Amino acid sequence: MINPEYIGFLAAVLTTSAFLPQAYKIWKSRTTDGLSLTMYGVMGSGTLCWLIYGVLIESPSVIGANTISISIITFILIFIIRTKK
Amino acid sequence: MINPEYIGFLAAVLTTSAFLPQAYKIWKSRTTDGLSLTMYGVMGSGTLCWLIYGVLIESPSVIGANTISISIITFILIFIIRTKK
Repeated sequence: MINPEYIGFLAAVLTTSAFLPQAYKIWKSRTTDGLSLTMYGVMGSGTLCWLIYGVLIESPSVIGANTISISIITFILIFIIRTKK
Repeated sequence: MINPEYIGFLAAVLTTSAFLPQAYKIWKSRTTDGLSLTMYGVMGSGTLCWLIYGVLIESPSVIGANTISISIITFILIFIIRTKK
């Protein structure tokens, strides 16, 4: 039987990587035009819940993936809020 | 002790809802300008891995959330591919 954590690790790498091009684009262009504060706010809250869920069910993949995602989403949120001023 | 599935369910609702405004916008405007095929392709593959992971660890929240997410992401991907032609 395959260890579920291998699949979980692959899933974590893929879904986390999906946010990176967006974060890179913001970093390069210094603009967040077209990005929705609501979407990233909801996504950030949801990711925080997944992190708590991961801790409760003791899943290393869920904890790891959501810790990295929260960091990237927080970075994007800070930029959106700063550029909206 | 709180049932982890409550937190997981809340997490599922939040991270799934985050994709809905994007899907709605595509449906209304019939355009996918500014959306990255790569990002949604990677996100879709990652979500599929999370679904398999959820089945392996027998987590109802992970299975439910990722089934709905895959449906929405597939809808967005089909639109991106069709409008790129």
